[in-house]
Amino acid sequence: MTLLDGRTTPSPAASALDLFERTRAQTRALVQPLTPEDMGLQSMEDASPPKWHLAHTTWFFEEFILKPSLPGYRPRDERFALLFNSYYVQAGPRHTRSKRGLLSRPSVPDVLDYRMHVEDALRDGLARDAFTLNQEDLDALITLGCHHEMQHQELLVTDLLHAFSYNPLLPAYAEPKPAPVYPVQDSAWTRHEGGLVEIGHGGSGFAYDCEGPRHKVWLEPYQLAGRPVTNAEWIAFMEDGSYETQTLWLMEGWAVREREGWDTPLYWWRQDDGWWTYTLQGARPVDLAAPVVHVSYYEADAFARWAGHRLPTEAEWEAAAAPTRIDGNFLESGALTPRAGLPGLWGDVWQWTSSAFAPYPGFRPPDGAIGEYNGKFMVNQMVLRGGSCATPERQMRASYRTFFYPHQRWQMLGLRLAADS
Amino acid sequence: MTLLDGRTTPSPAASALDLFERTRAQTRALVQPLTPEDMGLQSMEDASPPKWHLAHTTWFFEEFILKPSLPGYRPRDERFALLFNSYYVQAGPRHTRSKRGLLSRPSVPDVLDYRMHVEDALRDGLARDAFTLNQEDLDALITLGCHHEMQHQELLVTDLLHAFSYNPLLPAYAEPKPAPVYPVQDSAWTRHEGGLVEIGHGGSGFAYDCEGPRHKVWLEPYQLAGRPVTNAEWIAFMEDGSYETQTLWLMEGWAVREREGWDTPLYWWRQDDGWWTYTLQGARPVDLAAPVVHVSYYEADAFARWAGHRLPTEAEWEAAAAPTRIDGNFLESGALTPRAGLPGLWGDVWQWTSSAFAPYPGFRPPDGAIGEYNGKFMVNQMVLRGGSCATPERQMRASYRTFFYPHQRWQMLGLRLAADS
Amino acid sequence: MTLLDGRTTPSPAASALDLFERTRAQTRALVQPLTPEDMGLQSMEDASPPKWHLAHTTWFFEEFILKPSLPGYRPRDERFALLFNSYYVQAGPRHTRSKRGLLSRPSVPDVLDYRMHVEDALRDGLARDAFTLNQEDLDALITLGCHHEMQHQELLVTDLLHAFSYNPLLPAYAEPKPAPVYPVQDSAWTRHEGGLVEIGHGGSGFAYDCEGPRHKVWLEPYQLAGRPVTNAEWIAFMEDGSYETQTLWLMEGWAVREREGWDTPLYWWRQDDGWWTYTLQGARPVDLAAPVVHVSYYEADAFARWAGHRLPTEAEWEAAAAPTRIDGNFLESGALTPRAGLPGLWGDVWQWTSSAFAPYPGFRPPDGAIGEYNGKFMVNQMVLRGGSCATPERQMRASYRTFFYPHQRWQMLGLRLAADS
Amino acid sequence: MTLLDGRTTPSPAASALDLFERTRAQTRALVQPLTPEDMGLQSMEDASPPKWHLAHTTWFFEEFILKPSLPGYRPRDERFALLFNSYYVQAGPRHTRSKRGLLSRPSVPDVLDYRMHVEDALRDGLARDAFTLNQEDLDALITLGCHHEMQHQELLVTDLLHAFSYNPLLPAYAEPKPAPVYPVQDSAWTRHEGGLVEIGHGGSGFAYDCEGPRHKVWLEPYQLAGRPVTNAEWIAFMEDGSYETQTLWLMEGWAVREREGWDTPLYWWRQDDGWWTYTLQGARPVDLAAPVVHVSYYEADAFARWAGHRLPTEAEWEAAAAPTRIDGNFLESGALTPRAGLPGLWGDVWQWTSSAFAPYPGFRPPDGAIGEYNGKFMVNQMVLRGGSCATPERQMRASYRTFFYPHQRWQMLGLRLAADS
Repeated sequence: MTLLDGRTTPSPAASALDLFERTRAQTRALVQPLTPEDMGLQSMEDASPPKWHLAHTTWFFEEFILKPSLPGYRPRDERFALLFNSYYVQAGPRHTRSKRGLLSRPSVPDVLDYRMHVEDALRDGLARDAFTLNQEDLDALITLGCHHEMQHQELLVTDLLHAFSYNPLLPAYAEPKPAPVYPVQDSAWTRHEGGLVEIGHGGSGFAYDCEGPRHKVWLEPYQLAGRPVTNAEWIAFMEDGSYETQTLWLMEGWAVREREGWDTPLYWWRQDDGWWTYTLQGARPVDLAAPVVHVSYYEADAFARWAGHRLPTEAEWEAAAAPTRIDGNFLESGALTPRAGLPGLWGDVWQWTSSAFAPYPGFRPPDGAIGEYNGKFMVNQMVLRGGSCATPERQMRASYRTFFYPHQRWQMLGLRLAADS
Repeated sequence: MTLLDGRTTPSPAASALDLFERTRAQTRALVQPLTPEDMGLQSMEDASPPKWHLAHTTWFFEEFILKPSLPGYRPRDERFALLFNSYYVQAGPRHTRSKRGLLSRPSVPDVLDYRMHVEDALRDGLARDAFTLNQEDLDALITLGCHHEMQHQELLVTDLLHAFSYNPLLPAYAEPKPAPVYPVQDSAWTRHEGGLVEIGHGGSGFAYDCEGPRHKVWLEPYQLAGRPVTNAEWIAFMEDGSYETQTLWLMEGWAVREREGWDTPLYWWRQDDGWWTYTLQGARPVDLAAPVVHVSYYEADAFARWAGHRLPTEAEWEAAAAPTRIDGNFLESGALTPRAGLPGLWGDVWQWTSSAFAPYPGFRPPDGAIGEYNGKFMVNQMVLRGGSCATPERQMRASYRTFFYPHQRWQMLGLRLAADS
Repeated sequence: MTLLDGRTTPSPAASALDLFERTRAQTRALVQPLTPEDMGLQSMEDASPPKWHLAHTTWFFEEFILKPSLPGYRPRDERFALLFNSYYVQAGPRHTRSKRGLLSRPSVPDVLDYRMHVEDALRDGLARDAFTLNQEDLDALITLGCHHEMQHQELLVTDLLHAFSYNPLLPAYAEPKPAPVYPVQDSAWTRHEGGLVEIGHGGSGFAYDCEGPRHKVWLEPYQLAGRPVTNAEWIAFMEDGSYETQTLWLMEGWAVREREGWDTPLYWWRQDDGWWTYTLQGARPVDLAAPVVHVSYYEADAFARWAGHRLPTEAEWEAAAAPTRIDGNFLESGALTPRAGLPGLWGDVWQWTSSAFAPYPGFRPPDGAIGEYNGKFMVNQMVLRGGSCATPERQMRASYRTFFYPHQRWQMLGLRLAADS
Repeated sequence: MTLLDGRTTPSPAASALDLFERTRAQTRALVQPLTPEDMGLQSMEDASPPKWHLAHTTWFFEEFILKPSLPGYRPRDERFALLFNSYYVQAGPRHTRSKRGLLSRPSVPDVLDYRMHVEDALRDGLARDAFTLNQEDLDALITLGCHHEMQHQELLVTDLLHAFSYNPLLPAYAEPKPAPVYPVQDSAWTRHEGGLVEIGHGGSGFAYDCEGPRHKVWLEPYQLAGRPVTNAEWIAFMEDGSYETQTLWLMEGWAVREREGWDTPLYWWRQDDGWWTYTLQGARPVDLAAPVVHVSYYEADAFARWAGHRLPTEAEWEAAAAPTRIDGNFLESGALTPRAGLPGLWGDVWQWTSSAFAPYPGFRPPDGAIGEYNGKFMVNQMVLRGGSCATPERQMRASYRTFFYPHQRWQMLGLRLAADS
């Protein structure tokens, strides 16, 4: 897995094609440890098989660039459009999402061949200057496709963790590797003045539609914790009986907790008088100093209430993060799990905010199927910020918004406390 | 039903006791047309039987005022605390919410007697100046209890409509009454400058905890439609195939629509080449000029997208409404259904906003069970503003926030369009 | 409740009209203790409100006798056909079964008036000799309607018990009455030779279609226990850990047990170091010597396995019971609960057999809607025999087959052991 | 696939070891066309992945023969006992049945190695005469293991068909092969005298516990149709509106039909003005003269009612079949789909009977885990007789009973009509 080499700061891409090559290579590297049978695993409707991620990210380039804009392009198989469209209504019918794990055909070699087919067509089209789009629009679409694929890189490893977790053998996706040792980080709070700030993407680099328009928000003075909530703190919360204390919970969170029988984060169990957890490196003792991960919004909210604090809004997080350097434990580190002692606002775990995913003032999605990318999810989901140990670093920006349902836990989700000042 | 006398502007209450007497009398008036069997109807977990509303609103006074603060108070039946607590965890265990319709005992006469028992105790305690609370706190709790009961008045009639709708006889709760005729209202848009405004409750009158603190919000310039969306406009939306056009819908809204088979607002059907609807006055032809009612957030959002506009945020609505006089079709009019042609921002139908129900900056719920009133619902629900034809007028304030799940339709829910300016 | 007077042997009916009068009077007596709100209770789809039983049994006479065969008959309300048809497809559309509890209208007085309307028409038609049917067919239909109503008498009280059980007040339908004291009954087994026997109804008296044709069955020699399994024996089964011993259970029974959390018969709980149960006389200590009641087929089957025996087939039961006198604790005793120490094969609790409900050789249901009475239920249900403390005695015959799903428990269901000989 | 060579009459096995070798080889031949990803497919809880069938049938020999009776036997992997136990409670804990498709590890090569490990140990133990069992008991257990594996051969191909059916590519498991042409078979009815007959297994050859004891049954004279119901007849049933005619259906069957939206057999669709179906040879036009397959009990029962006949009881079928030679379209033919024009009572499709799966008189399951093989399924399932085109011919006997739930359709299930005589 040469691309996951522990470097935490990938060099910037020189061009859209350069970004394309790096992104595609990184995806290939991610599936290198997998068997053909691993490639088909789907454990729930929210998750997809690795093979499907490989094919769907390829379909995205084919559907939105090659088919409309490369004269003479011949798809490798017309039927793949049906199989590998995810949710783009305007791009035609789709295979049932919950049944992706039943697509044993096309096989892994077929899908790898499909990837090569599309890559070759794109490279060739660029070399021949054969696209009917202007360079700027073409670069923008290729860049969008790469960012899309990076999102799926994150899903690929977290979906895989979820699927593997149903196997009593608890397979390891990767061998543990020695991690740098950091001094224990200052847990002091940082104070922010607030006032009339601007958030959202407004510059010239890549961003998703939902990150803009840049706009004004009024913030009261606030504080943010110096690091995410740790496993040690979470255990204190558990030992205080908080999973059984209804008054700490949102009404709906309590109902989900009862229905699901939650009494720990996802993937935890008690063994030999200690807490263990299942990770991409297999079963391991819980690292007390590391950020807690795999907690739902309901749990994060209950923890904050128990701690006497609250979750930040996404505007508070962004206003604080925008001036800081993006530096943290991302996918490229190869750690694949949160690390203890890292300073700063970035990486390790996505941080639940108290903000529902909603359009910014003046938001209008682009026309066509691409406009379905984010806009149609703007209800009942909560925004998270900061990226995780499964997020490609190149994706990150201060304005980046990811979003999940309050009950979801299978991504690398944690929290950072906030307080009024 | 003498209190529902068509007056649209109830005179202000002279004192907490005065408010108490009027509120209690209005509740009694609301159940006057009901049979003992009607009093037990519960059609879904979200709704409660009329009898239960009668008892629960009484329990509220008993639990939060008489028991803790009136020395020597003897409950009529100790077991009622279990039966008539709704969701206050800190007030002890509760009967299963979905089984309230199975409480044939205590009977209606028993519950009416319970109401008298509590009313007499409260009056007597006031007359004897026997409460251990200071007057200000006591008045505040009585006032809260009255507003709580007014909320249940609204639920009582809308829950009843829902339960009656399962009866093929489509019973009429009330006889239609002649309504004033209004000139057709101007549908022009009103423009608002926005800027740094203040919203939320900050004054001295009654408000729920979630309406504060008063706080600053930055608004871009915006416009609001001069009236709610009408049935005629909704039919145009339907006839344009919008219920079958997936791209108009939020992803989740489309899934709900498919699962539930929605293709009209709730309670509508086709008959004799026209649209009919079931109301508290029984089956009636749809009034084309009246505001559409019984639509979900998903439908309202799809309509706005179809119309090329959007829903307002709650801050936009409040900033526009705060300077205007509260005047509209509320419960006291006795109309019990939206009316055509009424001007202004108030009454007829609750208006869906695009704002998720969330805590205002600096919000902290009060201690104790009363703190569960609103705070624990702050996830996955959307705010509505303006009150409806089932809302007691005395409840209304510009800062008033009600909230429902995006799929819910059984309340008097409609919409008003907004646009960027 | 004058008709439930403790007499255990009702005198035979002198005529179809005599049976009609007695049956109708007995139904009225059964609802005499109920409030109007009790009359509307429906706790699950399998159960119906008392008021609905009153109306449906009336509809049966109207639909199958008055409408087709009494010239000039005018229904009291044409819409009742929709409301009170249960499952007769050929008799027209039906109201949704699970929503019967929402029919607050027609009211109880309306339904009682409907009963009188139909009774008067039937009496008058008989007096005037105005029916277009011959006397034999008319008597047969009236008799069928009475037996149908007797079945609903049993359902009425058991459905009511189920609905009341959701009320934390645990209302008593009837006051406990002193019961005769019987000597403890001989628990010895009776041996039966088997061989080629005949079972099924073949005589001239009333029987349901599914009881015939009379036919030959080969039986190996067998034994039947002298009395039903008692509560004391059931407690021994429980205390032996049998609810937690998977190997005693049918695969499907274990799954239901786990899903439902069963660890006792329905309506049992532990209190003050003893077992209590909820009955039609309210909460009472479990009577150790009385037959166990409210157990599913799955539980009965597991008990028999635990005891080293088995359940009888319905042919074994019938061959043994046919020569004996019908004598036991039926509805007319007013006991409303199984009694200790009664000898014989009849009454107290329905006895689960190991026979699936299936057509006898040569069975053909009658034409028309009446043919839906039993035939369409002949899959996935098990036969029970012998009648219970909620069964009108006049219903009983050796060939009488009732049937329930293996998971159902709300009827008066118990068991008697059998063994090979 | 050399063992599926079209021979329809496999020669008898010379010994238990000979049967073992042939059975194991046939299983390997069945998976030869599959990719590693196919091997992991599980489409529903009722079905299992091919790889799991390979491993579970191996586990059976290990668990019931090698571990208890071969001194010194070392399992290849102790953890496989957990992964590959199906439902034998007495053989220890089991992996969740619905999650078998998530066992990407152990891999296909590992499972094939596991098969060899167990085969070698068994062969070696036999060669060394090292088993602690006497020869007769050992042979009986090996034979049971082989028959068990033959059952899983049938499940393997039918489960695979079900999983493949979710793939829009509709993969072909096998190429269609030329089939022998038979003259159209006589559809005349055969008459049987009935009387006091004996059914059930009583001889010395292999049979499952549930096939005995042999016992007497009284049968009235009856007739059986000369061939199974054909696709042409089924289409006539469909075209007569029978899927929409409630009175033809059992109450429960109608409810399932409505919930599932059934209006054809499983895997059928309309295309180019004709009926097509998905088979193990891919999509094909429905063969009008071939037996209908993939119909539930509910559908079979409705068809029989529509046709004015009935389904046979299992005793009727067995009494008629016992004197006839076992000859028909079984797995070994390689047809993998029912064939037109075959005479006799055997093969092509399992034939639904009207008999619930129940213990024969005097049935007692063997002690230990083997006793769970059939007995614990004896509720709510219906017996089918005769074997199908997916059944290994060596399995068949006149006394053979298979059983499925009335709603199940994914096996090769059809029907033959019966009538009273």
